[in-house]
Amino acid sequence: MELHGGNIYKIAKELNIKKEDIIDFSSNINPLGVSEKLKKEIINNLNIVQSYPDPDYQDLKSVLSEYNNTDASHIIVGNGATELIYLFARAIKPATALILAPSFAEYTIALNQAGVKINYFGIRKEDDFNLNLDALKNELSKQYNLVIICNPNNPTSTYINQNDIEEVLSFAGKYNTTVMLDESFLEFVDPGLISRTDNLYSRYKNVFILRSLTKYFALPGLRLGYAVSYNSEHLSKLRKNQEPWTVNVIAELAAKVLIGDKEYIKNIFGYVDTERRFLSVGLKNISWIKAYNANANFFLLEILNDITSAGLKSELLKSGILIRDASNFKYLDNKFVRIAVKDRKSNQKLLECLAQVK
Amino acid sequence: MELHGGNIYKIAKELNIKKEDIIDFSSNINPLGVSEKLKKEIINNLNIVQSYPDPDYQDLKSVLSEYNNTDASHIIVGNGATELIYLFARAIKPATALILAPSFAEYTIALNQAGVKINYFGIRKEDDFNLNLDALKNELSKQYNLVIICNPNNPTSTYINQNDIEEVLSFAGKYNTTVMLDESFLEFVDPGLISRTDNLYSRYKNVFILRSLTKYFALPGLRLGYAVSYNSEHLSKLRKNQEPWTVNVIAELAAKVLIGDKEYIKNIFGYVDTERRFLSVGLKNISWIKAYNANANFFLLEILNDITSAGLKSELLKSGILIRDASNFKYLDNKFVRIAVKDRKSNQKLLECLAQVK
Repeated sequence: MELHGGNIYKIAKELNIKKEDIIDFSSNINPLGVSEKLKKEIINNLNIVQSYPDPDYQDLKSVLSEYNNTDASHIIVGNGATELIYLFARAIKPATALILAPSFAEYTIALNQAGVKINYFGIRKEDDFNLNLDALKNELSKQYNLVIICNPNNPTSTYINQNDIEEVLSFAGKYNTTVMLDESFLEFVDPGLISRTDNLYSRYKNVFILRSLTKYFALPGLRLGYAVSYNSEHLSKLRKNQEPWTVNVIAELAAKVLIGDKEYIKNIFGYVDTERRFLSVGLKNISWIKAYNANANFFLLEILNDITSAGLKSELLKSGILIRDASNFKYLDNKFVRIAVKDRKSNQKLLECLAQVK
Repeated sequence: MELHGGNIYKIAKELNIKKEDIIDFSSNINPLGVSEKLKKEIINNLNIVQSYPDPDYQDLKSVLSEYNNTDASHIIVGNGATELIYLFARAIKPATALILAPSFAEYTIALNQAGVKINYFGIRKEDDFNLNLDALKNELSKQYNLVIICNPNNPTSTYINQNDIEEVLSFAGKYNTTVMLDESFLEFVDPGLISRTDNLYSRYKNVFILRSLTKYFALPGLRLGYAVSYNSEHLSKLRKNQEPWTVNVIAELAAKVLIGDKEYIKNIFGYVDTERRFLSVGLKNISWIKAYNANANFFLLEILNDITSAGLKSELLKSGILIRDASNFKYLDNKFVRIAVKDRKSNQKLLECLAQVK
């Protein structure tokens, strides 16, 4: 069982086929791939690899802070958001943490490494995996040091609106609970659903907002994440515990090129949104699958007949399609799989293959 | 005071000149720059950034293990050797450590973060910064959990021969002392001085050999280091404490392209060796400088007149030359600077500027 999607290296080897011949629905990245503009910039600036990254990442932080309507002093950058999850766990060392689940497996692994006592708060199938805010508040009144919320959530693709998030921040604040808010997939959410005004969270010292360039800009191989925090004590502990130069110069360049390109950012959303709607309609026609509402660039699917998640995965692999068996997510079982939104041709093929199963 | 060389970002900003207009003698990297072959391979394979790195780094480890005449199971890769120094400190948590000094500042910072009690063993100016093996053995008999040796050493450029290293490994083994042997600059050492046979260290379970692609292949911006160990307990603790995907896909590609290219590896050495000799001769003509014998791609210089290291640095910056003020290395003072071996034109300019000082 794979801990994550995306390990097509192993699967290609096992099946003795080329990685390129697999249509990878298991990895949640923008299907348009890396931008042509970025490729050109990398090609024209390859000599930058000969220099160390700026240890202070001044220009990078300045670009990211502008994008987030905040000041560079509130930004910390990392070798993927993953580095920052692990860094937070070991530098802040919360005694207790609550993780909303099912969610990204690395939260648990990072907190376990740091010896944090973990409880889970289940978002329930009965609620279509939407948050029960009152139940969460009730749990938060037990005074955790940390609560981790992924929004939109992986693998459920559910989205908690900003009013509810604010209510969580404010309520958690009363108990000195820090909220790690992983917004790695936020850019995929319909802007109509995001009511956040500029600097909405700057009033909260207890939020640690994780962001990533990996998914939206299709750069998981480059590794670039960052976090925004208004808690100077947290930031200073994190910086003190971070080793130097964790972000490479190509990732630095990518942020500078892409983050400012509003037209391109809009185009990605438009493309993904169209394909998400296409898949949503198509999946409704497959009677033995329940597709939960997708706010990010992936769908959580529940298998309603007697096929298992592993069985469906093997079946689709015969057609060169790799999906994510989601049975190892906490509170999910062997009836759940996750699929990414891809390009039209691939999405069409997936729907056709699903229609032919059994 | 900068902790490291190479922060030309800050200096360029302070002087209000372009980074490219500074000749950077402060950063110890191969002056030939990044290989044209690698540039071509990156350009032809830019789409790899769209995939996550292989979480097991199978191909990368296989290339590195072949280069090191060992098995892939003995290799651990990292986001620069720096990641592995910090990872070792926090995963193995030695209670006490001995650091040979002056040396790379990150050892101390990493061990301090992990709460390790640190002692220093001074390699002395009186010995031209060469190791006094008996004195070290005497110190090691105090039973440290870890000793850190950089070979060749930064900033002294001194080299400990393999017989002496073996004697240290064997002696330290008696006291269950692990030897972290940082060989980041080993490829720059004259092969005639390296008597190491294949797998020399494989007999020692108490060695942790750090290697880097950063310096020799001029890729500090890409971040790729690795370590070789024959201690399965160490390796399993390190892997358990390491977050996933710390090496990016461009760094992975670079290793695959460069490590196998024996002709290129030889050419780098030839070039650097010629320039090292050129500088060595030139420096002898400057009466107020003592240049210590250089085994790596840099020289430690001692200023014999009344100029300070900071004064010399400022003076040379007027000509666009950046050197490393080495006064903040432990056991050095404000009479020491470090210069990298660069291309002929730059080396010539440095010598000319030094000749004109005062």
